[in-house]
Amino acid sequence: MNKPLRGVIPPVATPFKDEELDLKALQANLRTWNQTGLSGYLILGSNGESCYLSEAEKEAVLAAAAEAMAPDKLFMAGTGCESTRQTIGLTRRASELGADCALVLTPAYYKGQMTNEALEAHYQKVAEASPMPILLYNVPQFTGVNLAPALVARLSAHDNIAGIKDSSGNIGQLTEIIRQSRPGFAVFVGSAPVFYPALCVGAVGGILAVANVVPELCVELQRLYQAGGHPGALAMQRAINPLAALVTTGLGVGGLKLAMDLRGFQGGQVRSPLCLPQAARPQLAQELDKLRPLL
Amino acid sequence: MNKPLRGVIPPVATPFKDEELDLKALQANLRTWNQTGLSGYLILGSNGESCYLSEAEKEAVLAAAAEAMAPDKLFMAGTGCESTRQTIGLTRRASELGADCALVLTPAYYKGQMTNEALEAHYQKVAEASPMPILLYNVPQFTGVNLAPALVARLSAHDNIAGIKDSSGNIGQLTEIIRQSRPGFAVFVGSAPVFYPALCVGAVGGILAVANVVPELCVELQRLYQAGGHPGALAMQRAINPLAALVTTGLGVGGLKLAMDLRGFQGGQVRSPLCLPQAARPQLAQELDKLRPLL
Amino acid sequence: MNKPLRGVIPPVATPFKDEELDLKALQANLRTWNQTGLSGYLILGSNGESCYLSEAEKEAVLAAAAEAMAPDKLFMAGTGCESTRQTIGLTRRASELGADCALVLTPAYYKGQMTNEALEAHYQKVAEASPMPILLYNVPQFTGVNLAPALVARLSAHDNIAGIKDSSGNIGQLTEIIRQSRPGFAVFVGSAPVFYPALCVGAVGGILAVANVVPELCVELQRLYQAGGHPGALAMQRAINPLAALVTTGLGVGGLKLAMDLRGFQGGQVRSPLCLPQAARPQLAQELDKLRPLL
Amino acid sequence: MNKPLRGVIPPVATPFKDEELDLKALQANLRTWNQTGLSGYLILGSNGESCYLSEAEKEAVLAAAAEAMAPDKLFMAGTGCESTRQTIGLTRRASELGADCALVLTPAYYKGQMTNEALEAHYQKVAEASPMPILLYNVPQFTGVNLAPALVARLSAHDNIAGIKDSSGNIGQLTEIIRQSRPGFAVFVGSAPVFYPALCVGAVGGILAVANVVPELCVELQRLYQAGGHPGALAMQRAINPLAALVTTGLGVGGLKLAMDLRGFQGGQVRSPLCLPQAARPQLAQELDKLRPLL
Repeated sequence: MNKPLRGVIPPVATPFKDEELDLKALQANLRTWNQTGLSGYLILGSNGESCYLSEAEKEAVLAAAAEAMAPDKLFMAGTGCESTRQTIGLTRRASELGADCALVLTPAYYKGQMTNEALEAHYQKVAEASPMPILLYNVPQFTGVNLAPALVARLSAHDNIAGIKDSSGNIGQLTEIIRQSRPGFAVFVGSAPVFYPALCVGAVGGILAVANVVPELCVELQRLYQAGGHPGALAMQRAINPLAALVTTGLGVGGLKLAMDLRGFQGGQVRSPLCLPQAARPQLAQELDKLRPLL
Repeated sequence: MNKPLRGVIPPVATPFKDEELDLKALQANLRTWNQTGLSGYLILGSNGESCYLSEAEKEAVLAAAAEAMAPDKLFMAGTGCESTRQTIGLTRRASELGADCALVLTPAYYKGQMTNEALEAHYQKVAEASPMPILLYNVPQFTGVNLAPALVARLSAHDNIAGIKDSSGNIGQLTEIIRQSRPGFAVFVGSAPVFYPALCVGAVGGILAVANVVPELCVELQRLYQAGGHPGALAMQRAINPLAALVTTGLGVGGLKLAMDLRGFQGGQVRSPLCLPQAARPQLAQELDKLRPLL
Repeated sequence: MNKPLRGVIPPVATPFKDEELDLKALQANLRTWNQTGLSGYLILGSNGESCYLSEAEKEAVLAAAAEAMAPDKLFMAGTGCESTRQTIGLTRRASELGADCALVLTPAYYKGQMTNEALEAHYQKVAEASPMPILLYNVPQFTGVNLAPALVARLSAHDNIAGIKDSSGNIGQLTEIIRQSRPGFAVFVGSAPVFYPALCVGAVGGILAVANVVPELCVELQRLYQAGGHPGALAMQRAINPLAALVTTGLGVGGLKLAMDLRGFQGGQVRSPLCLPQAARPQLAQELDKLRPLL
Repeated sequence: MNKPLRGVIPPVATPFKDEELDLKALQANLRTWNQTGLSGYLILGSNGESCYLSEAEKEAVLAAAAEAMAPDKLFMAGTGCESTRQTIGLTRRASELGADCALVLTPAYYKGQMTNEALEAHYQKVAEASPMPILLYNVPQFTGVNLAPALVARLSAHDNIAGIKDSSGNIGQLTEIIRQSRPGFAVFVGSAPVFYPALCVGAVGGILAVANVVPELCVELQRLYQAGGHPGALAMQRAINPLAALVTTGLGVGGLKLAMDLRGFQGGQVRSPLCLPQAARPQLAQELDKLRPLL
């Protein structure tokens, strides 16, 4: 893989229409985003309702995304499943369908058994079997499992483990992951409200739900940071925080999709048991309006 | 469905051999258990490593189980998936393959969005679409989502929602579920260390991992209780507690399978990332030995 | 101490008037309760707002309680403080003021350091220094610290450690505490919604907030249980559950005091930052009314 | 109060000798630290084992500290107790004994009742009654109670509420507290592993346990940050992280005191149930050695 692991990457929302995949809407979004400074796309991430898709649907989404994506954008595929076997299978399939790298969620159902040893063995096996680089994916608020910095550091020694997305929101942990891992290990933050401080402590970029809605502001935040413009980057962080909170912990994927619609993208519907929080539409519109002067 | 919802039901372990399904071992276990006082079988439950199986493998397991199971035993299938759509699909397929009823795990990945309203709508849709009765399945230690008694009570009013398996281990909650739900709603406890107190407060039976290992002792505990033999039932509870703890929170599914082997059943292997805790074999053997006089 | 450790004991509420102790109200309550089947009183427990009292006030409350209490009732004093030294000091003072035994809350502020070793050493030192028997007090929902059954069992071997109040509400844990501890170790449950199942698994009694409001119903529940009247005991459990939930997790100590007032006892005011939830008065009255036929 | 609220402040450890206060050791430490760039001292904080002190001992510690402290250093006193009344009493006494401001821990024992309303009323009452400015103190890992940004923002409007120490370690929350509170509200971070990112998002300083051990490095980190030396500040952050982790979550107050001894300060003993983790002395020495080149 020659594309650099850095910058802003949206965990791409998967549009539905009457409970069916709406791949045209997905492709339309990607084609619009191809014109932005986004570094790439995460297909089949948490915000892509990946866990609501059948095996065949996952392949259809990957194939459709591959078709619409500009060739210079990084194609990251979410391939983590509960078993090592399923994870390897989906990782290989994603590679065949054009993905550049895989983001591998921690297995989590049997929390009590997901010891450091079990997690380490799982990731080693996936890394060995994968035809493309993998990144670890840590999101304890969804999984109840946390990848500790020392474990991440050990895994970072593997040639085919290229980085991590840490969505814990814990900047102390992120600092330690970066400090303890091998130089060059690509650490992405997965929580928009701490994007700027994550960059300060050495993150290479962000995989951020809100980048589905205001990609240019997320990209601009990182540009400002890299140009040494700390005050501007902090101001941008503070500006996007209310919207970022709404489309994640506040309203979830349904809120994210409504905000995409309001911004002119095609969020589409969610799958049940998720709902579109229609009552929150005015609040989302209001927060977006506050950001217009920056757009 | 004419079979009563009561008694002891093992969440049947799914044996593997070199990462592949070992359906012959599964069938051998069922044929042995057909001779016991078990009321039925839960196929594709948490202890069946259901989340490690592909869609095709789930069907193969259900079909193999149907073949081996005595016709008077209750055939309960675990069909809960993250989306309503997947859940309905698997529930219908399980019915076609011979299941008598379905046990439907709470969706849980998007915890923050799994409000009472979302969960209620999900279960109503599944109950409407299911050709057979469904039972709710609450296991907060795995899912991070809890079904509150008031919500269970509302759902118990639906004709096609026949009961619940509550694995929280919380007897206060179980008491309230029973008190608030409609008469006749079948409440199973899913945690062996509180089987006897659960019966005391009105549970109709237990869906218990340790019933894969010592089915006759679990059955005897409930028989003693129903005969008014409280001291004997409590003594049995205390006797099985150490083994029950080991094969669940202590060692997980791997420990359960080793214990099954030690007892003469065919536990088989687990799928990665789970492991067989071979080092614990002597401890499991010791606890089983203590139970021999009761067998 | 010749008084038996068993039966129903209220963690006595401490009445206030304009933020000052109202010891006359306290004594009036005790004198009324002296006529009931309560086994004794816990003075300075969690429901006594002990943590809101100065050192001098704690002594005043103990002295006033001693004066009003019938001589045959067990006088249990809550003496647990964060340091071993403070705990020993208050335990000795309580003994001088007439207490029969002490209930010693787990230290909890430095949670990460409250290892099994630290807790064991703490309790050993307090037991050595105490002129009267002590009981352990486990209430993880307040403290964030849990006394595991194996630790309790080790401590039960000490001559001067007579029992435990476990308020975790976890009946599986209670069963294990009883199974693993020395015979004769007095295990009280501290959570009214599981009083009946706790008795079933071997608890000797309950230290129950709701016994400040409906002492006779709690006493009757245990009497029914001991007479072998399981159905009656369960019915009583179900009857008191709504009120018991309101005066603890629902509305806290403020709700407890309002319910005492409604019942004709003198609950008095709470200290800030607690509040009397006056808006809940009708709901409390309604639940009490439902219990009138049993009183 | 004319002293600025900013910079590095150690939560001063309270030395003990054979379980008794060792006030000479306390004063010796303060006199040494008077020569450093520390902005002031927090007396009776969590790391001062405040919860282990009697009322009289708290006054003795405050008086001894007042005597030894250089007049230009900020004298902050930890005065939070469970009740509003106790908190006001100790705050007034601390002011009489020379404190410049008070740090007021959230009440937490009755967690379920510590609603936003109850906490707001508590802090308003304390602020009204206090003769000196107060700061809020949020440390959810000890208390189980969290002060949400919106509540902090409302409280920041009070003239006598000057700031907050947030020890949650949550930089997203810190960013929001700063964004939502009134300009000039002094936000200190209370977790050393996130000192640098906290400064980046607008914190005015840090109240840091590790500043008892390496005050000059903490002061230098903030100086570098303020001089625009981001790379140097980050390097310092990474350098102090291992020691900072050991003397807090790793080994607690006992570890902090051992490290103070190793550095040539007088840590002294802890009070039971805390212990000095003597076995960790080599590890602490090793981490300190790594920092020598920076000292």
